[in-house]
Amino acid sequence: MDDKTTVNELKEKIKKFCEERDWDQYHDAKNLAIGIITEASELLEHFRFKSEKEVEEMFKNKDKRENISEEAADVLYFVLRLAQKYDIDLTAELNKKLEKNEKRYNVEKFKGSNKKYTEY
Amino acid sequence: MDDKTTVNELKEKIKKFCEERDWDQYHDAKNLAIGIITEASELLEHFRFKSEKEVEEMFKNKDKRENISEEAADVLYFVLRLAQKYDIDLTAELNKKLEKNEKRYNVEKFKGSNKKYTEY
Amino acid sequence: MDDKTTVNELKEKIKKFCEERDWDQYHDAKNLAIGIITEASELLEHFRFKSEKEVEEMFKNKDKRENISEEAADVLYFVLRLAQKYDIDLTAELNKKLEKNEKRYNVEKFKGSNKKYTEY
Amino acid sequence: MDDKTTVNELKEKIKKFCEERDWDQYHDAKNLAIGIITEASELLEHFRFKSEKEVEEMFKNKDKRENISEEAADVLYFVLRLAQKYDIDLTAELNKKLEKNEKRYNVEKFKGSNKKYTEY
Repeated sequence: MDDKTTVNELKEKIKKFCEERDWDQYHDAKNLAIGIITEASELLEHFRFKSEKEVEEMFKNKDKRENISEEAADVLYFVLRLAQKYDIDLTAELNKKLEKNEKRYNVEKFKGSNKKYTEY
Repeated sequence: MDDKTTVNELKEKIKKFCEERDWDQYHDAKNLAIGIITEASELLEHFRFKSEKEVEEMFKNKDKRENISEEAADVLYFVLRLAQKYDIDLTAELNKKLEKNEKRYNVEKFKGSNKKYTEY
Repeated sequence: MDDKTTVNELKEKIKKFCEERDWDQYHDAKNLAIGIITEASELLEHFRFKSEKEVEEMFKNKDKRENISEEAADVLYFVLRLAQKYDIDLTAELNKKLEKNEKRYNVEKFKGSNKKYTEY
Repeated sequence: MDDKTTVNELKEKIKKFCEERDWDQYHDAKNLAIGIITEASELLEHFRFKSEKEVEEMFKNKDKRENISEEAADVLYFVLRLAQKYDIDLTAELNKKLEKNEKRYNVEKFKGSNKKYTEY
C-alpha cells in the first residue's frame, strides 16, 4: 500500500486495528488529542537545537530519515483515528480550510512572506 | 472532495497552495514540525479541564464540532506538507507501523488494555 | 536545596550549568521553547489514556511519582533558562498575569466553574 | 514582587488563587499537564517560521517581548500549580536532574556540542 490509498481506506484499516483490541473505550477525543500532540512532540524532538543545515543532513541518513518518517506516521495514525471515531471527513475539512486560507493568505500580498495573516 | 480522495491527491493540492505562495523557503522540517505541534495544541485546548461527558457533548453542538474538525484538518495539513516536501509515503509508513504494533500490541494480551507495550 | 530557594538562585544555577558547556549558541528562544514543549509532552505522556483514578494511583507509587516529578523539573529547567537568557522576571510576569486573571476569572462568577473566560 | 521571591511563595500565591475559585476539582495532574503543554505551544507559536534573526528582533520590540514573557509565565503557572497540588519540591527535583546531567553531559565531552547524550 502507498499514498495512492484513499483517506477512507486508511481510516478503515485503523478502525479494524483498534476495534480488534477493544480500544474504543479509551479513544475519546481528549485522549486522542493527547495522542496527537505527544507524537507530534516526538517528531519535533529530532530537530531540537539543530540548525537548518543539520536538519537537511538528517534526511540524507537512511536510519534517521526512517525514524522521522515513522513519527510523522504516528501523528497521522491518531488524526485518522479521531476522524474515524467522530465521523469527520478530513478531506472536506481540509478543503474548507484551504478555501478560507486562499483569502486570508492572498497570493499577491503573501507571496514569499512568513507573516501570519493576523500580523497584517 | 471527500475522504474517497487519495493521500497523493491531498499532497498535490497542498503543494500547489504552498508553492503559489513561495513558501518552500520557510517549510523546512523543523518549522513544519512546529506547525504540527502548535495545531495539535489548538485541538487539545478545546478539551482542557473538560470531563469525558462534556467532551462528548461538544460533538453534538454543530459549531463546536465544526471548530474541532477544523483543528484536526490543520494538523493534517502540516503532516501532509511535511510528507510531500520530504518525499515520505505516509501510507507505507503507517502500514509498517501497524505491522510493528500488531506484534507489540498482541490482541490476546492487550485486548481491552490501556497499557503501553513497555509497561508489560 | 528546596523550594525555599529564590527564582533568581535557580536561574543562576542553570546559567552556570549551561555556560560551562558553552550552550549559549544553541539556546535561542525558539530552541528553548521547543525544549519546553517537548519536556511538557514527556510529562503528559504519562497520563495518556489513563483515567482520573489511575492518575491519582500513580502518585502513590514512589517510582512513578519520581518519574513524573522529574519531567516537571525538566519543563521548569527550560522555562528558567529562557527567562535567564532573555532577562525576564518570571515573578513579575506571573503577578501581572494573576492580576489580569483576578478580573477575567472574577471569583463570584467563576467559583467552581471550568469555563474559559472567553466562553461567557 | 520579583525573582527574589522563593518557589514556595509562588506556590502559595497560586494555591490561594485557585482555591478561592474552587478549582481543585479540575486541577488533576492530567489536566494540569494539558495546561502546561497548551501554554508551551502558545509560546512556541510566536517563533513559527521565524529565523533566528527575526526571533532576536522580537525581544527588542517592547510589546512583542511582553507577549512572549507572558506566555512563559503561563507555562510556569501550571508547573507551579502541579507541584503545589501534588507536593513536589521543584528545587530538589531540579537539583537531582542537574546532578544527573552533570554526568550525562560531561563538560569535557559536551562543551560546545548540541548532541543529546544518547547520540554518543
